[in-house]
Amino acid sequence: MKAAYYQGKESIAVAECRPVAPGAGQVQIAVSHCGICGTDVHLYHGRMDHRVKMPQVIGHEMSGTIVSVGDSVAGYAPGDRVTVRPLDPCGECPACRNGHSHICMKLKFIGIDAPGALQALWTVPAHTLHRIPANLSLEQAALIEPIAVACHDVRMGELKAGEYAVVQGGGPIGTLVALVARAYGARVLVTEVNPFRVELARSLGLAVADPRSVDVVKLVEDQTGGAGADVVFEVSGSAAGAELMTKLPRVRGRMVMVAIFADQPKVDLFRFFWRELKLVGARVYEPEDFEAAIALAARGAIPIDSIITKRLPIEEITEGFHEIERGGAVMKILIECGGR
Amino acid sequence: MKAAYYQGKESIAVAECRPVAPGAGQVQIAVSHCGICGTDVHLYHGRMDHRVKMPQVIGHEMSGTIVSVGDSVAGYAPGDRVTVRPLDPCGECPACRNGHSHICMKLKFIGIDAPGALQALWTVPAHTLHRIPANLSLEQAALIEPIAVACHDVRMGELKAGEYAVVQGGGPIGTLVALVARAYGARVLVTEVNPFRVELARSLGLAVADPRSVDVVKLVEDQTGGAGADVVFEVSGSAAGAELMTKLPRVRGRMVMVAIFADQPKVDLFRFFWRELKLVGARVYEPEDFEAAIALAARGAIPIDSIITKRLPIEEITEGFHEIERGGAVMKILIECGGR
Repeated sequence: MKAAYYQGKESIAVAECRPVAPGAGQVQIAVSHCGICGTDVHLYHGRMDHRVKMPQVIGHEMSGTIVSVGDSVAGYAPGDRVTVRPLDPCGECPACRNGHSHICMKLKFIGIDAPGALQALWTVPAHTLHRIPANLSLEQAALIEPIAVACHDVRMGELKAGEYAVVQGGGPIGTLVALVARAYGARVLVTEVNPFRVELARSLGLAVADPRSVDVVKLVEDQTGGAGADVVFEVSGSAAGAELMTKLPRVRGRMVMVAIFADQPKVDLFRFFWRELKLVGARVYEPEDFEAAIALAARGAIPIDSIITKRLPIEEITEGFHEIERGGAVMKILIECGGR
Repeated sequence: MKAAYYQGKESIAVAECRPVAPGAGQVQIAVSHCGICGTDVHLYHGRMDHRVKMPQVIGHEMSGTIVSVGDSVAGYAPGDRVTVRPLDPCGECPACRNGHSHICMKLKFIGIDAPGALQALWTVPAHTLHRIPANLSLEQAALIEPIAVACHDVRMGELKAGEYAVVQGGGPIGTLVALVARAYGARVLVTEVNPFRVELARSLGLAVADPRSVDVVKLVEDQTGGAGADVVFEVSGSAAGAELMTKLPRVRGRMVMVAIFADQPKVDLFRFFWRELKLVGARVYEPEDFEAAIALAARGAIPIDSIITKRLPIEEITEGFHEIERGGAVMKILIECGGR
């Protein structure tokens, strides 16, 4: 039984898992699969060291089976297949009191601020659990967390069937946003520069444009009768993306800020005024987004298997990080965590 | 009977008014008062010459009395006291078809793209009219248009009674936004640097902070139990305002972009993600905003007389522009247009 311990910038040690017996309100899960998220890469690069107690198990996009249950846990039993919504809010801050505990002002994100899922046996609060439907494999279920991110983004964008959506950035989250938007009946255009990701999105039936060679503003105008897009999802995190996003929406169109901008780019605030545009930030998810993601996955609306480009045993996890750093022919990498 | 003709950068000629007989669907108004708007100053500085056919009468914040009515005008008659919602949409563009004709993609703003109100006799489409209640003077009614701007801004900010609002910028529109927000039951803080405007806002009972000497972020946190503001209205149009606005809202708080930014400032997009902030642009008004402004003015909720800092006969209009350019002890300047 192994675990992957982050021990400082670009260094992960795979060593024996140290299981924690579940306390009151907790369950212990045998972790089957765990995806590597962009946040994990960020963390791996040392940019979240102020939040991490090293050596620390990281990871949060997971699936597994409950092996034991602590006191005061209702509704779950050993053998249940589950995924985890890795949020542990304080319950007391203004955001929590105002009904926004998913972005609690003192939020503990499990896998960053507390030990994560890249281990054979993982103990978490039972309030984080969502059940995996019988027709999803554990491998597929490891994608529920990023699909829930996409469901949250689409919900924050108030996307309606028949609307035209542009997704700026065709990485794992952008592609899932596009697939969720399509599943909800939107017309979708993805903008992406990486040729592998362009081809992958096209193979999934998505329309894709490379903004370096295509006039995306003109394309969107042409496809919307001159109106502009109903919703733009900014997932690229690039200055070019920040510039393009305000040019695309229709009068009273929406933008959803999914990307994490380290720098402060220039933004065309005049365009907000002129077209009464709306920009809304979207962070993590609420329980209903996990339920929406599970429902979409269970009805086969998301081609999960095509998003997974590699599986690695936990012993080879560092190779997974290296592959993501190299870019190229990579989308979602799953780590086999060795839980039974 | 005079009219004020803009004839090129920083040049306005006062000459004989050339009345236009009202055609079908039009009315002719004897204009009583017309305020000078920030947009008029912008135009006066030559920055809208591409939209203006010189020499052209400008102005749009007005009050007056109908003197004659063209064919096919129902519901209005000579003697009716009215103000004008100076928007002439095309009715055919995607924005108009989508119900957003107030920001029609080919909008004619009357007073910029068509002759304005700074003349004794003005002919406009009857669809622009709103009736002035009996208990408002014509002088007071000239403020209905900017109050409607403020009502639109507050409505776009979804401001609710009991919420905490920050208004960045205490010029005429910022002050009116603050007064409308207060009339709707919000707690309001105005940020402003001009000492005259600070004192004027304080004399109206508004809380005001100079962001150069007060830590506005800390002040707002202290006054909201650490939560942050529910809504921030950015009316300053400054880079400092663009920087401050994202620091103030609570989790899921809103910002309203009222100012017209000529430059593209840097914006903290990370903050949008982190707190799920929302920024919405607000431009001009819809008919319901005029009705809301009229209702607020009629019940005495807006201290209009205190906002008017000077009245000038139309012959002295250039002095009004000069006074606004100089800044200092100036808020709203009204021009007496000489309509009976």
